[in-house]
Amino acid sequence: MKVSQVGEFGLIDLLQKEAEAAQDKAQPAWKNLIIGIGDDAAAWRCARPVQVATVDTLVEGIDFTRQIIPWEDIGWRSMAANLSDIAAMGSAPRYALVSLGLPDDTDAEDIVRLYRGMTELARQHGTAIVGGDISGAPVIVITITIMGDSAGDLLTRSAAKPGDKVAVTGYLGAAAAGLEVLLGKKTLPANEVAPLRQAFARPVPRVVEGQALVASGVRCGMDISDGLVADLGHICEMSRVGARVEVDRVPVHPAVRAWFGERALSLALSGGEDFELLFTAGADTIKEVKNKLPGLVTVVGEITADNPGRVILVDAAGKPVTLQRGGWEHFARK
Amino acid sequence: MKVSQVGEFGLIDLLQKEAEAAQDKAQPAWKNLIIGIGDDAAAWRCARPVQVATVDTLVEGIDFTRQIIPWEDIGWRSMAANLSDIAAMGSAPRYALVSLGLPDDTDAEDIVRLYRGMTELARQHGTAIVGGDISGAPVIVITITIMGDSAGDLLTRSAAKPGDKVAVTGYLGAAAAGLEVLLGKKTLPANEVAPLRQAFARPVPRVVEGQALVASGVRCGMDISDGLVADLGHICEMSRVGARVEVDRVPVHPAVRAWFGERALSLALSGGEDFELLFTAGADTIKEVKNKLPGLVTVVGEITADNPGRVILVDAAGKPVTLQRGGWEHFARK
Repeated sequence: MKVSQVGEFGLIDLLQKEAEAAQDKAQPAWKNLIIGIGDDAAAWRCARPVQVATVDTLVEGIDFTRQIIPWEDIGWRSMAANLSDIAAMGSAPRYALVSLGLPDDTDAEDIVRLYRGMTELARQHGTAIVGGDISGAPVIVITITIMGDSAGDLLTRSAAKPGDKVAVTGYLGAAAAGLEVLLGKKTLPANEVAPLRQAFARPVPRVVEGQALVASGVRCGMDISDGLVADLGHICEMSRVGARVEVDRVPVHPAVRAWFGERALSLALSGGEDFELLFTAGADTIKEVKNKLPGLVTVVGEITADNPGRVILVDAAGKPVTLQRGGWEHFARK
Repeated sequence: MKVSQVGEFGLIDLLQKEAEAAQDKAQPAWKNLIIGIGDDAAAWRCARPVQVATVDTLVEGIDFTRQIIPWEDIGWRSMAANLSDIAAMGSAPRYALVSLGLPDDTDAEDIVRLYRGMTELARQHGTAIVGGDISGAPVIVITITIMGDSAGDLLTRSAAKPGDKVAVTGYLGAAAAGLEVLLGKKTLPANEVAPLRQAFARPVPRVVEGQALVASGVRCGMDISDGLVADLGHICEMSRVGARVEVDRVPVHPAVRAWFGERALSLALSGGEDFELLFTAGADTIKEVKNKLPGLVTVVGEITADNPGRVILVDAAGKPVTLQRGGWEHFARK
């Protein structure tokens, strides 16, 4: 049935039922909720002294397409990108508002699937969908707002200091590699496809890890959405520092390393959308973080006072390297 | 210069400067702000125990068009609709996130104007724009999220009780009449145009009034965005009550009454987007509200136990009336 036949209120009813059925009402967010879907605004009791909020709009044909992954995965990915922004503050996500722009001929069942993917991931991270709106649009437009809270300390992009180590969680490059596989640009043996496909279609935001970083004393961090080098550049700009990354230390995803040859490093450095966390801290703090998150943290470089706003890539010997035509090559030093 | 030439980050810089220049940093929202535009999320200290949040997406060609009013007014209206939802909870708006979807060939200066209109109204109501995002889109898509706070009590749609009076703030019908004038469907003497045009292009959300209602003990209310009858219907559904509206008591805007003949009442009952407040309360509470907001409150009917979910319109003699072909006529009773 098309959205135009179901009607705006009919569709809201469908989605509300979906949200009600899927959510775990025992979660703290639900216990503090005063007013959910259906009123002029949602309302909740402040559980912790600091509130955080982020919003992101995704447009069909530009930010996503229905040809590559199913609707549940599009919903999951949309929610993941936003949850990741809250994780990147070291905060706990609590409430989400979902605003949808839909063409009249959109299949309502597709939107229920989209919403199911969002709800599934939100529930896993204790986040209640408490409102939103539906309007007409020439293409599908998904806007998710997430509000979270924090005991006080946060991860920001502007807190990096010269001498800090630069570290990341998990592996990099898998989401970008997964997209290439899904687009048919790269063919892998069937049993190798799943983890890369999953990395693109169902990324897992580092919600618990972000809070663990703050608890360990980390104060500078963000999530990797544009790629390691670009995002570290954002930290350098906001913190007015430089950074040096030793490319051999970058944790390229094993399947990417195994199957993408000399492009593997490039995917890990610039691929983006892995939604891992990128952070900086002094050596002692990094040590504590490694104890708290065993096997998950890799130091890839350091923050410098020189070259403010810039990220320099070096090899194990400290020689600068640069990206050329899809592969990384050493500078021809003269 | 086109958005594609300025680039996403260039445009964000432009808008951030606009927001910085226009905002009054002495407002409480700014004093409690920890992190504004430029990080993964905005962050602020909870000033009051209850948080509220609402979101609304407006799509060019469906919810607005650039042909009728200038960009500043489109921005103002977009912000007004959202501030009104916070007012409708009896809460104070504090922070806004603005997410824009823009075609590549959008004129960047138009978007600065759009943003200026938003910022101007936000500032008037103590609301800080603290984040958002920009993405590509086939048409302009504006999504505003507003977060506010409250000392505890709220206006909800589900708190109407049989015996309550039904009341509204201000005059109704002016925004719908203003749109007809702007569309050239109706011609008025030049000096009569301004107030109706203003009602449509620069509606004033009842932010202070919403909080005054809660302070006076009102617990049921919403803003009039779909029209008096439709919105009272929402209250009746959510509160599982009926309502009777005496049409002769409805405060039709004087210019609408003067110039729109027998259609004036229809515009006031169904026009929508006046962003006045609609609320219900016992007679004593209404009396207190009238003292607190002199000249601003009109009782138009009452809440009933019968006909749950329905709004009945009656004349001064209590006889039911109904809308037929653009005018209101008495039922032919048999």
